Amino acid sequence: MIGVFDSGAGGLTVVKEIRRLLPEVDLVYFGDTARFPYGNQSPSLLRRYAEEDAALLVAKGATVIVVACNSASAAAGAHLKATLVVPVFDVIGPAVAEARRRTTHGRIGVIGTKATVASGIYERLLAEPKGRYTVIARAASLLVPLVEERWWKHPESIRIIRRYLQPLKQAQVDTLVLACTHYPFLQPILQRVMGKRVAVVNPAEATAELLRQYLIEHPDAARSSEARGALHCYVSSDPQHFSQTARWWLGEKVEASEAQTNELAG
Amino acid sequence: MIGVFDSGAGGLTVVKEIRRLLPEVDLVYFGDTARFPYGNQSPSLLRRYAEEDAALLVAKGATVIVVACNSASAAAGAHLKATLVVPVFDVIGPAVAEARRRTTHGRIGVIGTKATVASGIYERLLAEPKGRYTVIARAASLLVPLVEERWWKHPESIRIIRRYLQPLKQAQVDTLVLACTHYPFLQPILQRVMGKRVAVVNPAEATAELLRQYLIEHPDAARSSEARGALHCYVSSDPQHFSQTARWWLGEKVEASEAQTNELAG
Repeated sequence: MIGVFDSGAGGLTVVKEIRRLLPEVDLVYFGDTARFPYGNQSPSLLRRYAEEDAALLVAKGATVIVVACNSASAAAGAHLKATLVVPVFDVIGPAVAEARRRTTHGRIGVIGTKATVASGIYERLLAEPKGRYTVIARAASLLVPLVEERWWKHPESIRIIRRYLQPLKQAQVDTLVLACTHYPFLQPILQRVMGKRVAVVNPAEATAELLRQYLIEHPDAARSSEARGALHCYVSSDPQHFSQTARWWLGEKVEASEAQTNELAG
Repeated sequence: MIGVFDSGAGGLTVVKEIRRLLPEVDLVYFGDTARFPYGNQSPSLLRRYAEEDAALLVAKGATVIVVACNSASAAAGAHLKATLVVPVFDVIGPAVAEARRRTTHGRIGVIGTKATVASGIYERLLAEPKGRYTVIARAASLLVPLVEERWWKHPESIRIIRRYLQPLKQAQVDTLVLACTHYPFLQPILQRVMGKRVAVVNPAEATAELLRQYLIEHPDAARSSEARGALHCYVSSDPQHFSQTARWWLGEKVEASEAQTNELAG
């Protein structure tokens, strides 16, 4: 079973892509809604949360872990890969690979949470080959609240996005990485503001594709046990609200249950 | 010692008013930064968090508890008052009393988080005398992120505020309650958008005044032990970031320490 976790419902954008490419695989999802959002938290706290989230998924039967959250991937991706027995995928490696493929002039823009941008991980992963890539990463902290408020197309949202993207446009980036699970909801506006010629990278797609390749090479890693293509959802708070959101985002009925990371820690 | 808690640094607006009115009293503050913000959380989760936060303050020596957070006050104020041995103050009772005093035509507007507005507590507390008050409460979820982003005076902030306040202006409220610890930072814009004739109520002021009266009647409730007017700050994550914010907001040096509510629960 493939386990996916995120700070809340945002990681369902990754679930959606995985289900599109791998419809027969069973999934278990954990959204840490009681501690949402992760984007302003410190690296040490994010490592602790990510450890607890991954442990919960393993306890629920996950044999592969996908860190859907960019903030958690930046702070804890390498740490989880080094310490967990099961294979761990994060969303940043695939996003970087996709940005390398799609950039025409090596000018790569990244928008994400404060935690993701402060980590400097995109600059580090694109430092080689030396001088090939210029990375302009900017925190766009209001975009998650705008998506949560469902202000997809409000003029206020467009103005805020213009302000955040202005330095990236000025730096003439040719590629823009949406380094947060919430941002695909704003993709039409982001694309419009950046212009048609800028490639917009949704890490969810690249991550699902990498996972698909992995499962071709390791067919036993995530065999279906029961109903093929099942989706089990757990959240640390308010499963009803999550179920509504999930139903709406995924277009299918989702019954989330409550699960506490504390139970494992205690 | 007076214990004050909030989901993060916002409750320092309450600390500021308490220190202004009661400069000789010792204070212990807890900001639950690891689980910030509280404003979108469910009542049952907020009750659990509030219980843990209050227990931490009592363990640190608090003999009076002030729930600075409106969301926690709405969900758990009555519960804490009923279950804790020490006296508990919340910010909603004083805000309602102040709104009653200041309203000219009984038309009271309230802006707050989703959790505070969904609780319906302002409508309930202003239901008597029957027909005297009309309450128009609206969630203004983006205001906390705007304050955290420090967009105090950005044109985007003004536009967002206009959109949130429009139904309150249309309903011709004569009083506006800022039912969230973050909102006093936007008070100049909020006042400007509402117009000069609308009374703006900052619950922090009313709460500090109620506390002052209580301490006159109960002088032993919060005697100073060591340095008079000391302020001890604890946060569940990133004390350094909190210390910077606190220094800037309060205009004095603050050294926050890390403290875990889990330690008490476990």
